[in-house]
Amino acid sequence: MSETAEFTASCPVPMKDYPRVLLAHGGGGTLMRELIEKIFLPAFDNDELAQRHDAAVVEVGSTKLAFTTDSYVVHPLFFPGGDIGSLAVHGTVNDLAMSGARPLYLSTGFIIEEGLPMETLSRVVQSMRDAAHGAGVRVITGDTKVVDKGKADGVFINTAGVGVIEHALDITPRHVRPGDAVILSGDIGRHGIAIMAQREGLEFESEIESDSAIVSDLVMSLLSSGMEIHCMRDLTRGGLASALNEIADAACLSMEIDECSIPIREDVRGACEMLGLDPLYVACEGRFVVFVPPEQAARTIELMNGHVVGRDACVVGVVSGSRPPTVTMRSRIGASRIIDMLSGEQLPRIC
Amino acid sequence: MSETAEFTASCPVPMKDYPRVLLAHGGGGTLMRELIEKIFLPAFDNDELAQRHDAAVVEVGSTKLAFTTDSYVVHPLFFPGGDIGSLAVHGTVNDLAMSGARPLYLSTGFIIEEGLPMETLSRVVQSMRDAAHGAGVRVITGDTKVVDKGKADGVFINTAGVGVIEHALDITPRHVRPGDAVILSGDIGRHGIAIMAQREGLEFESEIESDSAIVSDLVMSLLSSGMEIHCMRDLTRGGLASALNEIADAACLSMEIDECSIPIREDVRGACEMLGLDPLYVACEGRFVVFVPPEQAARTIELMNGHVVGRDACVVGVVSGSRPPTVTMRSRIGASRIIDMLSGEQLPRIC
Repeated sequence: MSETAEFTASCPVPMKDYPRVLLAHGGGGTLMRELIEKIFLPAFDNDELAQRHDAAVVEVGSTKLAFTTDSYVVHPLFFPGGDIGSLAVHGTVNDLAMSGARPLYLSTGFIIEEGLPMETLSRVVQSMRDAAHGAGVRVITGDTKVVDKGKADGVFINTAGVGVIEHALDITPRHVRPGDAVILSGDIGRHGIAIMAQREGLEFESEIESDSAIVSDLVMSLLSSGMEIHCMRDLTRGGLASALNEIADAACLSMEIDECSIPIREDVRGACEMLGLDPLYVACEGRFVVFVPPEQAARTIELMNGHVVGRDACVVGVVSGSRPPTVTMRSRIGASRIIDMLSGEQLPRIC
Repeated sequence: MSETAEFTASCPVPMKDYPRVLLAHGGGGTLMRELIEKIFLPAFDNDELAQRHDAAVVEVGSTKLAFTTDSYVVHPLFFPGGDIGSLAVHGTVNDLAMSGARPLYLSTGFIIEEGLPMETLSRVVQSMRDAAHGAGVRVITGDTKVVDKGKADGVFINTAGVGVIEHALDITPRHVRPGDAVILSGDIGRHGIAIMAQREGLEFESEIESDSAIVSDLVMSLLSSGMEIHCMRDLTRGGLASALNEIADAACLSMEIDECSIPIREDVRGACEMLGLDPLYVACEGRFVVFVPPEQAARTIELMNGHVVGRDACVVGVVSGSRPPTVTMRSRIGASRIIDMLSGEQLPRIC
């Protein structure tokens, strides 16, 4: 896409051009951004929401809390490396971690389609239990609704999460600085490809498993080691490209990424080629980017590499002050291209 | 239903008798209780969830928080007196209030069916905004998912809420005492009937509007006036009968209710007769019961009557120590009958 298109995304066309909600309005790209900017932000006008971070941070009494929510509509419900239940825990716990919060409590709301086998529901709930146990969080409140057959798709799960912030850092895009190292926590694209392969009945030589995982332990250890984290974001809908664009936009800074440094497994790269997908836009569920001052990059990576979910962490780019805010990528052959927000729907119902 | 049936509800039949989820599993009655007891509680085994109160209460640092969630799947989306947007705020704010918390923040997760008119979404969001403003809460974090046409029903909304508890009371069923006055905050049944009338295209002489309303202001004023509230519960799915049964069960105490004292509007009573519904089981969305020591009943009612949502508040019964825990109702003609939990599905998708 062209640079002009990039700026079109920042100045979205009026919603009247879309009289109905499209699948792409939930895809994590420019249309979703437009929906949020035109419908949700003007209605719920407040500083916390306006920051558009993965979790809102508020002070209640003397306690600094993070609060976040996500609904999960992934299809199919079970996929290699996870299911809607584990995803509903990982996703929300990771969103809390992205604000530097220690995840504490989850709520869960089930919307169940009449006729769902009780066995399926039970498997999903067991999986949530195991994931919550692994993340050290407790599911302390919940709700169950059942809708008539054909009015949902098996089961949808919402989780909201509350965490506590126990450090003095303000981890938001506005603290990103020119010169910051952009660190990626591991290989990208496996979650999206695992779902697509399952959905389309594709078979690869070795099964590609979702990267769905809890990253909060890793984040807590970076914080307790005194790393001065400026910003973090997990790479869900819209993938690495959208996460970087969102941060560049909010920070009003540019980034230069080096294609060669981005870990992508060969089988994932092959599957993306077969499916016509760009791995930069494919969702992960256990990967994130972290922005730190350049002098802390080596130590941050050393710490990350010591964790199973950060084993392949590496520097993939650097923040620059050049305007307008743009994400550019230096390719394997040395050429430079602009990486835009995801436009349209790449992979619907990926989470 | 017989007394035996009441006890069957407490010792539910194995879930294998229900290999699939039924609409009634979301109805607020015995089947929902069974689903929670068999599937959810064993998985998420913790003290907060085990209390099965409208909101979980936890301490984070030195702050006592309430946390709750509800998903809203009401059909139709718009009804006399409200819509899914206002309902999604009122319901969650009221759940926080039922634990004595001052509601502070909401999250919201939208699951939208592809093709929903943008105009409809916008109306719903505006309505949420107005309701949040009225309740003095802020929507500070959110999520949007879109699913393919036919895989949802217009829009489903989840809200989770966080509130702060600023008093020393522990407002839970275990603090209900024999002799406590059972106070009902107003007339019952209007929400359920408003939805049913809209859904079935029924017309009454005067339109019956939902009672959907925010009760947190009223609850805060009871607390700040020093009323020693033992327990509260709002009357949503399953209505007054189910709320009283849940509390009787959890408190291991009985209650005697006086039919004549329960405010029910004549048009609501007529509509219930026409639809074959018992108003004791019809959902409200702005009504609650409160348990106070008998010597505080008069003052509590006086305070409640001063609020628009408590104008018709009155004592409807008394708690007794008799075993087993049973809710009995003295009828207009002086006979006594047992009021059970709702069994099966009375009104699906009422909230």
